[in-house]
This record gives sequence, C-alpha cells and structure tokens, in this order.
Amino acid sequence: MQMRIDLNADAGESLGLWKLGHDTALMEHVTSVNVACGYHASDPVTMREAVRTAAATNTAIGAHPGLPDLVGFGRRRMALRPDEAAQIVVYQVGALQATAAVEGAEVVHVKPHGALYGMALTDDAITTAITEAVLRLDPDLMLFWLAGPTADLARSLGAKVAREGFADLAYDDDARIIVEPAPLAKDPAVVAQQAVDLLEGHVTSTSGKHLDVEVDTICLHGDRPNSPDICAAIVARFDELGVERVPAIQLL
Amino acid sequence: MQMRIDLNADAGESLGLWKLGHDTALMEHVTSVNVACGYHASDPVTMREAVRTAAATNTAIGAHPGLPDLVGFGRRRMALRPDEAAQIVVYQVGALQATAAVEGAEVVHVKPHGALYGMALTDDAITTAITEAVLRLDPDLMLFWLAGPTADLARSLGAKVAREGFADLAYDDDARIIVEPAPLAKDPAVVAQQAVDLLEGHVTSTSGKHLDVEVDTICLHGDRPNSPDICAAIVARFDELGVERVPAIQLL
Amino acid sequence: MQMRIDLNADAGESLGLWKLGHDTALMEHVTSVNVACGYHASDPVTMREAVRTAAATNTAIGAHPGLPDLVGFGRRRMALRPDEAAQIVVYQVGALQATAAVEGAEVVHVKPHGALYGMALTDDAITTAITEAVLRLDPDLMLFWLAGPTADLARSLGAKVAREGFADLAYDDDARIIVEPAPLAKDPAVVAQQAVDLLEGHVTSTSGKHLDVEVDTICLHGDRPNSPDICAAIVARFDELGVERVPAIQLL
Amino acid sequence: MQMRIDLNADAGESLGLWKLGHDTALMEHVTSVNVACGYHASDPVTMREAVRTAAATNTAIGAHPGLPDLVGFGRRRMALRPDEAAQIVVYQVGALQATAAVEGAEVVHVKPHGALYGMALTDDAITTAITEAVLRLDPDLMLFWLAGPTADLARSLGAKVAREGFADLAYDDDARIIVEPAPLAKDPAVVAQQAVDLLEGHVTSTSGKHLDVEVDTICLHGDRPNSPDICAAIVARFDELGVERVPAIQLL
Repeated sequence: MQMRIDLNADAGESLGLWKLGHDTALMEHVTSVNVACGYHASDPVTMREAVRTAAATNTAIGAHPGLPDLVGFGRRRMALRPDEAAQIVVYQVGALQATAAVEGAEVVHVKPHGALYGMALTDDAITTAITEAVLRLDPDLMLFWLAGPTADLARSLGAKVAREGFADLAYDDDARIIVEPAPLAKDPAVVAQQAVDLLEGHVTSTSGKHLDVEVDTICLHGDRPNSPDICAAIVARFDELGVERVPAIQLL
Repeated sequence: MQMRIDLNADAGESLGLWKLGHDTALMEHVTSVNVACGYHASDPVTMREAVRTAAATNTAIGAHPGLPDLVGFGRRRMALRPDEAAQIVVYQVGALQATAAVEGAEVVHVKPHGALYGMALTDDAITTAITEAVLRLDPDLMLFWLAGPTADLARSLGAKVAREGFADLAYDDDARIIVEPAPLAKDPAVVAQQAVDLLEGHVTSTSGKHLDVEVDTICLHGDRPNSPDICAAIVARFDELGVERVPAIQLL
Repeated sequence: MQMRIDLNADAGESLGLWKLGHDTALMEHVTSVNVACGYHASDPVTMREAVRTAAATNTAIGAHPGLPDLVGFGRRRMALRPDEAAQIVVYQVGALQATAAVEGAEVVHVKPHGALYGMALTDDAITTAITEAVLRLDPDLMLFWLAGPTADLARSLGAKVAREGFADLAYDDDARIIVEPAPLAKDPAVVAQQAVDLLEGHVTSTSGKHLDVEVDTICLHGDRPNSPDICAAIVARFDELGVERVPAIQLL
Repeated sequence: MQMRIDLNADAGESLGLWKLGHDTALMEHVTSVNVACGYHASDPVTMREAVRTAAATNTAIGAHPGLPDLVGFGRRRMALRPDEAAQIVVYQVGALQATAAVEGAEVVHVKPHGALYGMALTDDAITTAITEAVLRLDPDLMLFWLAGPTADLARSLGAKVAREGFADLAYDDDARIIVEPAPLAKDPAVVAQQAVDLLEGHVTSTSGKHLDVEVDTICLHGDRPNSPDICAAIVARFDELGVERVPAIQLL
C-alpha cells in the first residue's frame, strides 16, 4: 500500500456576496487546493482571500480553471475548440499566478474544473491542447488529470502529472468517474474505504469490476451535505494506517 | 528638445466575432501596445493574437486592465474600493502575462484603461493601491500614468513609471486631459504639433495656459475617424526632427 | 396613525448554485417582493422559482432591476447616462414580466436596486428617465421610490408611486437613508418602533431632527444577521396595533 | 409556385461600442427581423435602436434569443436542460417585448439563435420546452423553426409556426442545414435560384437528393462577405417573378 498521498479540494468558490464552501476548515485537512479563477466561480478579491488562507495553512495552491459560465458553475459542457479551451486555461492560471505572486505565494498545479475536466476525459485533443499550453507556460506546473488514459496522455507529452482518484464518486467499467448532478450524502465509512482501496491501487466499478488505478492525489468534494464528516473519516483512516499527507507537487 | 520617445497605442480590443482596431497597421508605428485583458474588451484568443502580432513586430507588450464592463467598454466609472481596483488589475495583468509566456513573449508595462485610468487621476488611493500591487507582483513592470501628480505619486512609491502625454486630447489648466465621449476627426498637423510640444516639455491648455509637462510616452488613440492620418503625421514630424521611437521600458 | 401598509422585501437573489435569502420564509410576512432580474443577482431559473413562490403565497410581484455587476451585487455606482439607466430597467422588467406571464402571474411594481436606487436619489435625471420609461412600458406598473423628493418627482410625472420608508436604516437630515456597507444586527424593538413612527408619519434623523415622512411601503432587509427577528418584531407590533398589511398596488 | 414569402434577417447584433451588421440597409429588403437580446449579442440600448429602425421601416420585429456566450456569439453548444433553455428564451423575449413596448412597437415572433437553434434541431425535448414556454407566454407569438420535423413538432404542440428555409446554406439528405464556421462569399445567382426552389417547394441536398420542403420564411444571413449582393439578387428574382414579400406573421 502506498503510504504517501495528496488530498485536494476546491477553494475560492464564492462570488462577491455569495459565499460557498468552507475554505478555512478544509485547508486544515487537505494538502492541495484548487482555487477557482473567475470563469465558473470566484472573483479577484475572493481569489486573494483563498490564496491568503492557503498560504497561512501551508496548503499547496493550484489553479482551477473552468468554463465561462457562472450560472451553470462551469458544469454545463460547451463546444470549445481545443485551442479555445487551452487559452481560457492559460488566462485563468495567469490570473491566479499574479494574485498569488502579490501575496508572496505561488501556484504549483492546475486542475481543470467540472465540465472542462469532463470534456478532456472524452476528447484527447482537449487534454493535449491544455497540457501543452500549461507546459509552454511553465513546465514546473503540475497538472491534475484523472488516473488512467487522460493522465497517461498528459505524461506522454512531458508534463508533470498528478494522477487523480475520487473516493466519493462511483467509477464505470472504463475507470471513468460518474458525476452526480446534485451530490447526496454518502456513508463516510464507505468513502473512506474507497480512499484506502485507491492507496492499494484499485477501485471497484459500479458493476463490480476490479479496476487497477494508481493515484497521486485524492479529491475531496466540498459539496456533499456531509462533506466534513467524509473528510474526517478519510483523514482518520489515513492517520490510523500511518499514511502521510503530502502535496502532490512534493511527491514527484 | 527630447530626442527619444515611446509611442503607445491600445490593441487587442476585439471581442470574439466583433472586431475593433487595426492592430497590425498600428504596430508598424508604435513602440508599445496596451493589450486589453477581457474586462472591458478582448478575450483569451484575441489576447493571444494581439501578443503574436506584437511579438512579430518587436512592439513592447503592456497590459491594459479595465473595469468589468463590456457594454460600456470600461469607460463608465464604477465605485470600486482601492483594493478592489488593485485586484482587478492584478488579475488582468496575470492573465496577459501567462498568455504572453505561452507565446514566448513578456509583458513589460501596465496601463490602466479608460475610466479606471481616469479614476486614478482624481483619487490618489486608487493610484496608490494599483501601483503598490503591481510593485508586489513584479517591480520590473513599468506603469504608465499621466505625466503630472499621478505619475509623480507612483514614482514616489518606488515604481518604474512612464509619464504619459496625449497629442490628440485637450488639457485643462491642471494638466488633466479632457476625454471626449465620441472622438471626432482632428487636424493631423495640429495633433503632430502638440506631440512636438510635448517633446519640448510643454503643452497649452484649452484656456491658453502654458503647462510644463515632461513625458516618456505619447498615446496614439485608434478611435478617431482619421487616426491613421494622425499617426502618420506624428511619425513624419518625428522622423523629420530625427526623434527616435523607443519602447518606454528601454528609456529608463 | 396609518392603519394599512405594505411590507416589501427582496427575493430571487440567488445565482445558479449560490443561494441567498430566505424567500419562502420572508413571503409569509411581506405583502410585496422585489425579484432580482439577472443583472446584479438571479438568473432565469431562479427568477422562475421566486415567481412561483410569490404566486403560491399571494405576494405581489415586483421587478428589482439593478446595475450590471454580479461581483458587486449592484451596490457599486456606475456612471450611466439616464437613458442607459432607463433601458436596463426596461430590459430587466420585461424579462421578469415574461417569466411571470409563463407562470400565470403578473409583475405589478418596479423597485430599482441598490446603487441604481441610490443614484436616482441624488440625480433627478435618472429618476425621471426610469420613471418615464416605466410609464411608457405600462402606466399600471407602480414604482417604489424613497418617500420624499424622489417619490414626489415620480408622482409629478404621472406615475403610480409607492412612497417607501425604511425601518432599519438611519436617515440623514434631508430624509435620505444612510446605507451601511455591511449591515449589522440591530435591536428588533428599536427597528419596530421606527416602523411605527413611519406609520405615524415621521422619523428621527441621526442628528435628532424630526422629519415628516409619509410612506406606503416599508422595506424589510433580509441581509442583517438578525433579519428574521426584526421582521417578527415589526409584524408583532403591527398586529398588536391592528395595522393591516396590504400590497402597495392595492393601497392606491 | 408560392407567390408570397417572408424574408427574415438578424438585427441588433452590435454590443456597446462594437458594431456588427447593417440593420438599416437590410431592413429595406426583409420583412421580418430577429433582434438579438443580450445573451449572445446586443445590449439594452442596441436593442432599442434596432426596434426603432424596424418600427420606422415597418419591419416585423422578432426576438432572437441565444445562449449566454458573448465571446462565442451563441454559436458554441452548451449542455442546457430543456427547462433552462426555455427559461433563457422567456427571459430574452420578455426583455425585447418591454423594449418594443416602450417604443410603441410589438414583438411578433421568436427565432432561437445559432447553437440554440441547432440544439433544437437535434433534441426534441429542447424544441418542445421552448415552444411550450412561448405558448404560455403568449399564444400569438409565432415561432420560426426549420421547415421539417422541428417545425412540424412545434405545430403539433399548438404553436403558430413559420417554417424556415435557407437560400444560402447547403442541406444534408435529412433536410438539415449545414452551418459553416466562417461563411464565405457565394454566387448570388446560385443562392437566388435556391430561394426560388424553396418557393417551388423543394431544395437539393449536397449529395444531389431532391427534398420536398415547404417554407413560410427565408433567412438572409448578413455575415457573408457579399451578403448585400445576395440579398439584392434574391429580391430581384422575386420581383421579376411577382413574388410578394410579406411578414410571416401575416401569412397565416
């Protein structure tokens, strides 16, 4: 069993007056955060606050670029050309890099958000365009892609890649995650067990198929009704087992 | 008379399908361009194209951050707190820096756009917040501020500043520019003479007052009906006089 | 003392995933709601939900048009020309009218939101342009304007006007409300007393000046930490006194 | 051969400072215009100007609701639920209805724009949701849908429908139009002949298949380099043949 793992979560998901998420509480547990960059959520002041919280808690800061769709929270697919998808990633990553630089902090990874992440899973041209653009921007930036063909493709292009797994999502037989439109509460013990499975290099699909999956980072969603309990259960299991939590950027 | 000067113009002002400006033609004459960053104009693909044109013509690339107002083209003042104004500048500058980095180019200056530039002229707290944020982002970034108290304030904060003058705008008795809501054609010879006056260190206000003004860069607007003629007239006068055009970043 | 009054509150202030306000709870107490229309808050689906809730509770539906500024929630003044201000009101009112019509409901009043309301208080040209546009759109639409010169101006133009008072805001000596940037909790008993003062036709300014103010509707803000308590206290006082709550549109 | 036909074209496609289209010239020839409503193009002031031009030229006014995507001009598909698609149509139609009402004019038809129109062609649930929402808004509003299954579905729901044909687009063997990403110039005589074919009740697919198609309105695109010539050629052929141009709303 793998004894070191990154835990990542989304942050900076408020918009002006509208508050979402529990950045401060989350950052006590996770080792990497993905900060929204103004396209599907967040705004320049919210991004600054998220960066400050991350810096204060020694959480590794990543950019979480999304589709330009506030009302849909970046969860509605849009028919973008690959170069358009890459440019909106570059734009958003740069906006967060500058925000971090002003605070004396640094962006170390990029994880596309929502439908953009999902579009890459089913369209290699999108994955390639985004990965190559991030490489040209800064080859030290790590990309978070779903463990499996997408992460493998990005690695083959020469990028630093953290292979991502999901403890609270179901997998289909092709090791693709099944995203729920409106996440419900899940049994924390079951989710924690799936996290441990991932550390052991496997996960079980909804049809019962055993899938070999190697992961560098596990995503903790903040939008289930009982997300804090799930987070606590995973952390407790990991602590029990002596699994060390380390930012993905330090695992390579 | 000053024999070296920067000429700057705005670029990247299209938005998706909507085209505005003549980037390629302009960049044959000017030495610095201010690229819109998606708040008052431009989008990630348009920004990439503007950066490519600038790189191909050896034009110094600057960011032109504006207010978040596409319909008003960033020309309608908004009551932002100074720290909000600074954050939207940081966000937009970073977006352009990343766009440039991917193309192997670099952003060397920042010139706030439209109403944001105007707000800084009348509110030192805005000027200070923006200048200090840019300094923290990267002390090598040069700021373009109107020659006079605003530029002086920014210099006193330790920033690299290009003092800007306007050949095609009228000045009031306090050396503040008078912005026209809808720019009309102007006599190219008259504008070219005002450009020469600026090189000689002075300009005449609308009431006839002689104002001492030292400038490092002169702005060429692209939005007068006869902008190309004005541009050509200025360049011809400068060539006659042996005035060398040099990016502001190289003048210091 | 006036024995019939409208109580109004804002509604439909969510945006996609971001939830704000307590529409269902509020509509048990108020007789009119002002539904955000997508410029400073809300989106087409949120508007539909707010209309449905209002229709189900027999609450009079009004449009709450704001400035085009989601990040600032329409609270940052923008330098709009009066005809621009009027057009954005017309646009938003129409959007809500159609939303209501599809649900078998009707928009009966218009109350500008936030900074747009505030701009009208200090600029008669804005008040006039908005009022005249609403009159041309439909002379049966009632406008909510602050009791005093603004409401009087709109009435003089021939519009149906509900003169609005605020129980939880301080008044200056010119009977203008003093808007707090971040509303704090207030003593419900004190607020309820100011509501009763308004029914009696007066209010006391922060400097202690007695101001004569006649109102048709009182606004209940939902954004104080103890808004529900304040609302309950006002309703309790009104019930004690036998004051009837009636939609403003039915008071004329 | 059919001797009466509507010609429709898009209008109000500018955005603030960015100008697009030739509304005034077009409205001399067409009998119906589809006015953009602020989601993919236009803004409240631009909409007002388009309405005024249409009213002054006795051109029938329709709403042209699109996807919320200015940068993509509403041409990039977005994964909307049918009820979301219907709500954004209702929102935009209402916004234009109010704009028209203020000018003493009236919206008589609705034609979804770009990718939204295309999404309806391949998803009956979208067509149904939009059609039913427009019916609930006002059963007198006519919908423009592509002649064939989409128009037939809408008619079966009880809506007034104008069956639309395209003179300047190619058809596939299923009578679906083939949209070009960047329209090129086309031979005006060839386009005019296709317009005449449509009047005769047929069109030829790209593979040479004869398709029976009955149309009530023919769309004239304004975005080909030689659109004015195409428009003139069609009008000349129609005049020669004695074909009368009549707004679709008057054909039923």
